[in-house]
Amino acid sequence: MTTDPPAVTVGVDFGTLSGRALVVAVEDGRELGSAVHEYPHGVVEHRLPGGPELPADWALQVPQDWREVLRRAVPEALAAAGVMPRQVVGVGTDFTACTVLPATWDGTPLCELPAYAARPHAYPKLWRHHAAQPEADLIVRRAEESGQPWLARYGGRISSEWQYAKALQVLHEDREVYDAADRWIEAADWIVWQLTGAENRNMCTAGYKGIHQDGGYPDADFLASLHPDFAGFTAKLEHPLSPLGAAAGRLTARAAELTGLPEGIPVAVGNVDAHVTSAAARALDPGHMLAIMGTSTCHIMNAEVLAEVPGMCGVVDGGVVPGLWGYEAGQSGVGDLFAWAVRTTTSPEYAAEARDRGVSVHEVLTERAAAQPVGGHGLLALDWHSGNRSVLVDHHLSGLLVGLTLDTRPEDVYRALIEATAFGARTIVEAFGAAGVPVTEFTAAGGLLRNEFLMQTYSDVLGRPVHALASEQGPALGAAIHAAVAAGAHPDIRAASAAMGRIRHRAWVPDPARAAAYDLLYAEYLALHDHFGRGGSEVMHRLRELRPRTGRPHAE
Amino acid sequence: MTTDPPAVTVGVDFGTLSGRALVVAVEDGRELGSAVHEYPHGVVEHRLPGGPELPADWALQVPQDWREVLRRAVPEALAAAGVMPRQVVGVGTDFTACTVLPATWDGTPLCELPAYAARPHAYPKLWRHHAAQPEADLIVRRAEESGQPWLARYGGRISSEWQYAKALQVLHEDREVYDAADRWIEAADWIVWQLTGAENRNMCTAGYKGIHQDGGYPDADFLASLHPDFAGFTAKLEHPLSPLGAAAGRLTARAAELTGLPEGIPVAVGNVDAHVTSAAARALDPGHMLAIMGTSTCHIMNAEVLAEVPGMCGVVDGGVVPGLWGYEAGQSGVGDLFAWAVRTTTSPEYAAEARDRGVSVHEVLTERAAAQPVGGHGLLALDWHSGNRSVLVDHHLSGLLVGLTLDTRPEDVYRALIEATAFGARTIVEAFGAAGVPVTEFTAAGGLLRNEFLMQTYSDVLGRPVHALASEQGPALGAAIHAAVAAGAHPDIRAASAAMGRIRHRAWVPDPARAAAYDLLYAEYLALHDHFGRGGSEVMHRLRELRPRTGRPHAE
Repeated sequence: MTTDPPAVTVGVDFGTLSGRALVVAVEDGRELGSAVHEYPHGVVEHRLPGGPELPADWALQVPQDWREVLRRAVPEALAAAGVMPRQVVGVGTDFTACTVLPATWDGTPLCELPAYAARPHAYPKLWRHHAAQPEADLIVRRAEESGQPWLARYGGRISSEWQYAKALQVLHEDREVYDAADRWIEAADWIVWQLTGAENRNMCTAGYKGIHQDGGYPDADFLASLHPDFAGFTAKLEHPLSPLGAAAGRLTARAAELTGLPEGIPVAVGNVDAHVTSAAARALDPGHMLAIMGTSTCHIMNAEVLAEVPGMCGVVDGGVVPGLWGYEAGQSGVGDLFAWAVRTTTSPEYAAEARDRGVSVHEVLTERAAAQPVGGHGLLALDWHSGNRSVLVDHHLSGLLVGLTLDTRPEDVYRALIEATAFGARTIVEAFGAAGVPVTEFTAAGGLLRNEFLMQTYSDVLGRPVHALASEQGPALGAAIHAAVAAGAHPDIRAASAAMGRIRHRAWVPDPARAAAYDLLYAEYLALHDHFGRGGSEVMHRLRELRPRTGRPHAE
Repeated sequence: MTTDPPAVTVGVDFGTLSGRALVVAVEDGRELGSAVHEYPHGVVEHRLPGGPELPADWALQVPQDWREVLRRAVPEALAAAGVMPRQVVGVGTDFTACTVLPATWDGTPLCELPAYAARPHAYPKLWRHHAAQPEADLIVRRAEESGQPWLARYGGRISSEWQYAKALQVLHEDREVYDAADRWIEAADWIVWQLTGAENRNMCTAGYKGIHQDGGYPDADFLASLHPDFAGFTAKLEHPLSPLGAAAGRLTARAAELTGLPEGIPVAVGNVDAHVTSAAARALDPGHMLAIMGTSTCHIMNAEVLAEVPGMCGVVDGGVVPGLWGYEAGQSGVGDLFAWAVRTTTSPEYAAEARDRGVSVHEVLTERAAAQPVGGHGLLALDWHSGNRSVLVDHHLSGLLVGLTLDTRPEDVYRALIEATAFGARTIVEAFGAAGVPVTEFTAAGGLLRNEFLMQTYSDVLGRPVHALASEQGPALGAAIHAAVAAGAHPDIRAASAAMGRIRHRAWVPDPARAAAYDLLYAEYLALHDHFGRGGSEVMHRLRELRPRTGRPHAE
């Protein structure tokens, strides 16, 4: 579809600290302009605005911050792009997930009702709200006991971050809010409601975060086993699910006024930041794995078949594109580990060098690490500082470093951690292959792409080319691609992705000598992985149990 | 023996960087005065004075530096003590070992002959000269092949630091120096020669450093298996051995002039700094282990029986006191590990705090570590950054840290390393017990005694009281005690030690709750110790093998 002036869509990406609007040409994906709006309240972790203090592990957000992204960032992006509103043929969104909130029948967040404004449980719970761990543990225990068939679709574990655990926490801790919540809704769907004026629910969050499998949610008997009054919880979720790429509805007059976009344009079904990035990276074909690498790494891949991959975070029919099974896997700590290394295993000289040169300590460590031959530092690490999600599904594992000598320097530890996360990625790739859904292509996205040495190491360790998402704004571009599909500008998500997505093919290719050397180290990694992760030694669990209750709480 | 003015002896301790003279009352061990003289040449590691550059791992000394200690420190100590020379009834010495030099028949160091002054091999090789590792490896290999009975007396390993390895290196690398060396003599004996004018050799260094066992040195056949021209090497050592505590001879007029001491007073037989400290610490009874804790730890203990203790560094009949078997064991890295932690696993804030408060980073880390409950950090370490001497005898092992999380802070690693070295000490104590020579008392000496938290941790981990040497100058006090025996002021070393030694009984006693908690952690330590140290996993060896030859040389 080509017009003059060209048709564009707007993708709006709602992140953890800010929202971003991106204006994209529907013909070829050119990024014409963007704007960012920081959430005034950011992440509410310690105290409600004007309200009570929050316990540990809480993380809330304020819905008005999200509306402000629509009001501020969208028109600013249009202005930056130099396009006229009438050029905009559709709008799409993506959101962090599971970020979920209680609302009334008309979509009003409970926290916006004066009666509940001072009640923490009335606010949206951000994805990284981790206070529902007891509820998550209970859900898994009861599901195991009653043999729930859906448990295997989530690698045997339901996260404390997801819809059911968070809702059960509300029931346990604030019965009035629980009862007042007509709807329990993903922010991904709530923001679409703001645009279209009608509730809509997407298949992605319902599947990955809401335990919606084979056409339904967990049954009432199961829910009653969690709490007698939880049996009817699903009523707060029930709604027809829309396939991804569809139009959820049309932009209301009120939303048009808010955003400056034309009234009546199609609004794409809600989506998740990680999953929608697959469209931006043209990583939708079966077997094409996308790794979104930041503080942690999320792996997304489509396949034609349903398989049980050890430790996958979820597999959802149509969870990424209609007609394919969408798989999600994850590494609990990646960039987090490098930040830990800078915090913990560095030295004043390195900090001084970074300051003098005007670079980050990461850059100083990376330079020194990159100058070494494979195996030169003599170290091997297990990258389990935050536990292991895929493939072991054990968040009580911990990190390990072996090979330390009096020669060991901070850059050695830093490099060993980079390598360990690459080895961890390889275990996931191999687990998919072993489960019958082989990875044929590997593309990376996310903040860690800036570290060339790290990416080259991934290619060497994986022994395969690594492609790169060639946009700085992957999720927003993905949302704009979905908007183009919803607007009918392309026939489906895969066609739209092929036209508008941006990939740098073979951005890194393995060096044969380094790859061979890493094969040897990977064999050692696997031996440690299995010894400490599969019961050969229970020392990691026992060390955790020996931590006194009076000690510091442990980050999950 | 009481006189008025009181009889004193002088102990002279020759360390790595300086020598120290101490004046001691023979009646009760009161320390009356001391003086230190730094060696002008220190440790010669990079370049001979006015001579060629040295290869890696070399460490030489200059004999004139040692004579200067006699000339300067002895009279200064007498002056500081306010005693008259005629009060001095005897003089004793101790030395680092194995520090060994080639000399002519009259005791002249080869390096002092103009023909050899520019030849590195003509200089004394300091204990920490580590360039004879290939020779040490050869000695062990040949000894294993030919089933040498003495090998077991050294835990199966002959060190590159000892007399035979160092001498064989000379033969390999500088045949002229080797041939010109009429004598190959420990500095401990050479310094006595300077005082008495006659060669004398002590049972301690002959046994621990010279492979003298059951009345003889290794035989000519064995030596020929190392190198055909090495068969006659023992001729450079042969000399009657004197028991410890005996008088080697009497002070010559020339030495009296040099030192300001009375001509003709008895001079005690030479001795080693670590071993002589047992007398200072009253740790001579069978089963009383002395741990001299510094960058590494040396364990000395007497027993009435000969036993094979796994990984002991040596067992010598009369090696500490006549009539008992003297055992030596060792931990390769202790204080070194804490220095590594400060160098590697700290952060700029801690360095800044130390600077602001005028304390060391060690103190900052110790304070924070000490505030934790046992197990609070969730970590466990293996203290093998420098390999493991006792009880595993494997210098290719390496350090390990397990239990790392994103919460792990520098003080956590620091405390885990302190605990790991305490666990390592416990494996040695238990190995002695299992071998039939139980440890009944445990006394500590050395620089680490200043760290109260560390010492308390040792007591908690060992589950027993730890006594302290109550002198800042243990070796010099021990040498003065030996001098008193040589002078006849006490009947034997044990009696002299009882009268003159200084021990603070039960300086640290275990806290029952902490000791019980450490028992659990020690069980985990032992499991890791056996898995990585006894063949369950060969990863430490393989990581070392994978280090490219072009990589940094590895510290032994």
